[in-house]
Amino acid sequence: MSSGRFYTLAASCPDRTGIIARVTGFIAAHNGWITESSFHSDEIEGRYFMRIEVKADSLPFMLAEFRSRFAPIAQELDMDWQITDSAVKKRVVILVSKQEHCLYDLLARWQSKELDIEIPCVISNHDTFRGFVEWHGIPFHHVPVTPENKREAFAEVQRLFEESRGDTMVLARFMQILPPELCAAYPRRIINIHHSFLPSFVGAKPYHQAYARGVKLIGATCHYVTAELDQGPIIEQDVIRIDHSDAPDDMVRYGKDIEKTVLARGLRYHLEDRVLVHGNKTVVFR
Amino acid sequence: MSSGRFYTLAASCPDRTGIIARVTGFIAAHNGWITESSFHSDEIEGRYFMRIEVKADSLPFMLAEFRSRFAPIAQELDMDWQITDSAVKKRVVILVSKQEHCLYDLLARWQSKELDIEIPCVISNHDTFRGFVEWHGIPFHHVPVTPENKREAFAEVQRLFEESRGDTMVLARFMQILPPELCAAYPRRIINIHHSFLPSFVGAKPYHQAYARGVKLIGATCHYVTAELDQGPIIEQDVIRIDHSDAPDDMVRYGKDIEKTVLARGLRYHLEDRVLVHGNKTVVFR
Amino acid sequence: MSSGRFYTLAASCPDRTGIIARVTGFIAAHNGWITESSFHSDEIEGRYFMRIEVKADSLPFMLAEFRSRFAPIAQELDMDWQITDSAVKKRVVILVSKQEHCLYDLLARWQSKELDIEIPCVISNHDTFRGFVEWHGIPFHHVPVTPENKREAFAEVQRLFEESRGDTMVLARFMQILPPELCAAYPRRIINIHHSFLPSFVGAKPYHQAYARGVKLIGATCHYVTAELDQGPIIEQDVIRIDHSDAPDDMVRYGKDIEKTVLARGLRYHLEDRVLVHGNKTVVFR
Amino acid sequence: MSSGRFYTLAASCPDRTGIIARVTGFIAAHNGWITESSFHSDEIEGRYFMRIEVKADSLPFMLAEFRSRFAPIAQELDMDWQITDSAVKKRVVILVSKQEHCLYDLLARWQSKELDIEIPCVISNHDTFRGFVEWHGIPFHHVPVTPENKREAFAEVQRLFEESRGDTMVLARFMQILPPELCAAYPRRIINIHHSFLPSFVGAKPYHQAYARGVKLIGATCHYVTAELDQGPIIEQDVIRIDHSDAPDDMVRYGKDIEKTVLARGLRYHLEDRVLVHGNKTVVFR
Repeated sequence: MSSGRFYTLAASCPDRTGIIARVTGFIAAHNGWITESSFHSDEIEGRYFMRIEVKADSLPFMLAEFRSRFAPIAQELDMDWQITDSAVKKRVVILVSKQEHCLYDLLARWQSKELDIEIPCVISNHDTFRGFVEWHGIPFHHVPVTPENKREAFAEVQRLFEESRGDTMVLARFMQILPPELCAAYPRRIINIHHSFLPSFVGAKPYHQAYARGVKLIGATCHYVTAELDQGPIIEQDVIRIDHSDAPDDMVRYGKDIEKTVLARGLRYHLEDRVLVHGNKTVVFR
Repeated sequence: MSSGRFYTLAASCPDRTGIIARVTGFIAAHNGWITESSFHSDEIEGRYFMRIEVKADSLPFMLAEFRSRFAPIAQELDMDWQITDSAVKKRVVILVSKQEHCLYDLLARWQSKELDIEIPCVISNHDTFRGFVEWHGIPFHHVPVTPENKREAFAEVQRLFEESRGDTMVLARFMQILPPELCAAYPRRIINIHHSFLPSFVGAKPYHQAYARGVKLIGATCHYVTAELDQGPIIEQDVIRIDHSDAPDDMVRYGKDIEKTVLARGLRYHLEDRVLVHGNKTVVFR
Repeated sequence: MSSGRFYTLAASCPDRTGIIARVTGFIAAHNGWITESSFHSDEIEGRYFMRIEVKADSLPFMLAEFRSRFAPIAQELDMDWQITDSAVKKRVVILVSKQEHCLYDLLARWQSKELDIEIPCVISNHDTFRGFVEWHGIPFHHVPVTPENKREAFAEVQRLFEESRGDTMVLARFMQILPPELCAAYPRRIINIHHSFLPSFVGAKPYHQAYARGVKLIGATCHYVTAELDQGPIIEQDVIRIDHSDAPDDMVRYGKDIEKTVLARGLRYHLEDRVLVHGNKTVVFR
Repeated sequence: MSSGRFYTLAASCPDRTGIIARVTGFIAAHNGWITESSFHSDEIEGRYFMRIEVKADSLPFMLAEFRSRFAPIAQELDMDWQITDSAVKKRVVILVSKQEHCLYDLLARWQSKELDIEIPCVISNHDTFRGFVEWHGIPFHHVPVTPENKREAFAEVQRLFEESRGDTMVLARFMQILPPELCAAYPRRIINIHHSFLPSFVGAKPYHQAYARGVKLIGATCHYVTAELDQGPIIEQDVIRIDHSDAPDDMVRYGKDIEKTVLARGLRYHLEDRVLVHGNKTVVFR
């Protein structure tokens, strides 16, 4: 990632000749200094993906004008696109249940400014981490979820997210299934950490499934949430080696290390606009 | 693994107190020098697993007498057991189709004596590797398999395996499905390398399945062959990282590196009697 | 690791025949139920290592009597040995400076009881984490260290460690070099996390050294502290892949993930008496 | 990597604004279709690196004209640059001694066309692999090296390399140190696989050094050969986990798996013009 303030253009469009030249030519014409750039041509899909960081102070205009000047080119190339400003911190709302490993990990990264974000609030269906979260100066909302109140509870979650002006919702081992309406309201903005190496072991108790099958590695998967459980676009995955001496409880313990690492990496890619989604797959410009 | 000649006892039995003491007490009583030993208690299954290497020349008797003297103890403990002699090379028959990576890898390991085995023959449904195999001084049998002759072809494979006095059959990317009778004839003696991280992507074209799902790691699985396709006890697995720039063809290429490594490791564990099977799971004393 | 209360015997002795039989025979004679056991013969050094977990309630006596009854066997075999009780929590004193990643990670593991230890206090040469530590109900001691007061400061650290009845001292990115007397006072009881894959890049700023050399992987090393800087017995190591796009600052960020994971693993091995030291090397019965 | 015939431009130059626009603008002006492109700005060195694949049949001219038309731009940007044609196979001369693992591995990859290269000859200081190499239809030259004939022997190696019109020389566990003149004659064209994770354990018997230090991972390093032993620019590295039960002989065995994999990866990067060297470091556009 670049140092100093920069703008990040992330875009995809149908593939053709001259795309890079068109886009970088525009930036060069305004004397823009490109510090990082990534391009990918998906030959099977015929689609082109790019991500470009430009030093903010190398351009003679601000973000709004950058956007308006770039818009005709984007239209010409039939682009899905966005430009973001590194000086505007993303607002990340964390949802958690009773397991602490991902929450502690994210707050440590936030505390050290490794994750340079705002956390407007943490929402939980349990009151367990109120003190811990509030000690960090972050508001904590306890929204109990029961089979009976599920609709109201998630309406409240959505209200809190809106009120917080959240950009991204992170399910940091949040053990409730989000209703399809909520998933649909924030496409590519809700990130989950699943405690298996998907597509193996979808659904509940993946470590017990892994134990029963006798696999030699267990994993975790960070993905965007869609209405289909555990089926959203995969952002990041990793695995850890286990052996016959590991009972499901040991796997749970090992798994936590993978879960928090994979979630932190996936979230970082997302926050830095490194993840471009096409269909149910991702291009991740690490 | 020990140096010099040694006997390897591999056994499992219902768990109770005093198993190690009973077994190692017997060995100590005959002045046996234990160079490597591994034990595992599966608390969920209530079963005990062990593997012990004893220096051959530390014992006052040979293998046959070791077996007959140990038999009463094994009976008392209700053991599944075997004792093998490191001086007797295992006889490994390799089955291959048209991909060379696992075959070259196994023959390089055999050539350097890293795999200290006999390869009485290589069997293939194609004639592709005849020259390569014969150059190594190993007999090569071409047994074409068609939908029509499948029964006869595998009868011939079995005849060749028997004639070769094979201990173990290795499917080194052999692209034909073995008939259930053949699988049943050699339980825990047929080893396959599957080109996915099972249980993900069973069946055909796993790399294409992996590409379609957008996973970030691909893998390979070495397992014992049973009548149920891709469902046998897993011996070893590993994975390799891929990204969006890898098309299925690239995955095939990366996958080969994992396949040959995982097959070589799994085969070595098997040959050194490090793999104990219980139900559909393995204990692997690495 | 076993469930329920258990005793752990960890021992090493000169290698000879009959060691396992002698030790497990003693346990079996008292009807002791062995749930986990590991043995290793170092053929080059001629030394034997073992670790045995016995269910506490399977024995007809308590720990003190276990020790006194076992002592003659240990003497006979010329053993270095210890027996610990899983019901007695180890007391771990954490030393930290201004980086939070290892501290947050350890406290999360302690909070969830994954690390089933007492943390009698945290000591730091900065006041940064007082609030965070105290929020967890753990006493925090600020002991500033300057070139002038170094002797007094570490005398105070030692006094606090003694007063806390600490078993183990963990340097969780503590950025001061311990004086040789302190190292000598607690052999195999002080654990450090070094931010390189030792023996590469000893000393200061290892990530900058790694950047300058252009390595493709960076790592971390958990080791016992001895008077020789970065030279103590290695308990655990791991690495992470980097590439040309990673500046030293990025390496620092990646490195933190490896550091906290490697420290947590190494500390766990130590606390479970899985680490046996011989000379400057370790046997780690994972 | 692209499918079909393509040209690859690999270049580096002092960083400034407009580099990508200038280069891709030129390609776009001739209707060139870019299938893969990578860019890297080294902010510390102030240098820019790039690699671009252009479909050959999208351009209205052939390679020679591409070069002559691009030359003024390269001069303007003060570039180190080269353009290669995927239809012209690289000529790789392999040097080997008595260990077969890398040789078998490279020939398997060549046999399957995974490595789409010419191997004009294999040179060895032993006659061991003559039959194996010649069976593949590749000329084999036995050039014995002794302390006395070292100068003449390497003059002969150089003569054979020149006569073969070799592009790249691969030391596939060639156990002789190349004389400085030979290293200097082919900068960035001689590739070695070193059996340690450099900069740890330079020089002889790295596995024995690793054993003595008690490290928990061992590795291998693929690097360009320079006159300074084991100090050349690193192309690729990897490691494998070991433990206390592994004696130096076991490490040698494990190490071979890492060595051949790392060499194959590094060589591929080199052959695909993915490795740009600056000073003693590499940019590897994987």
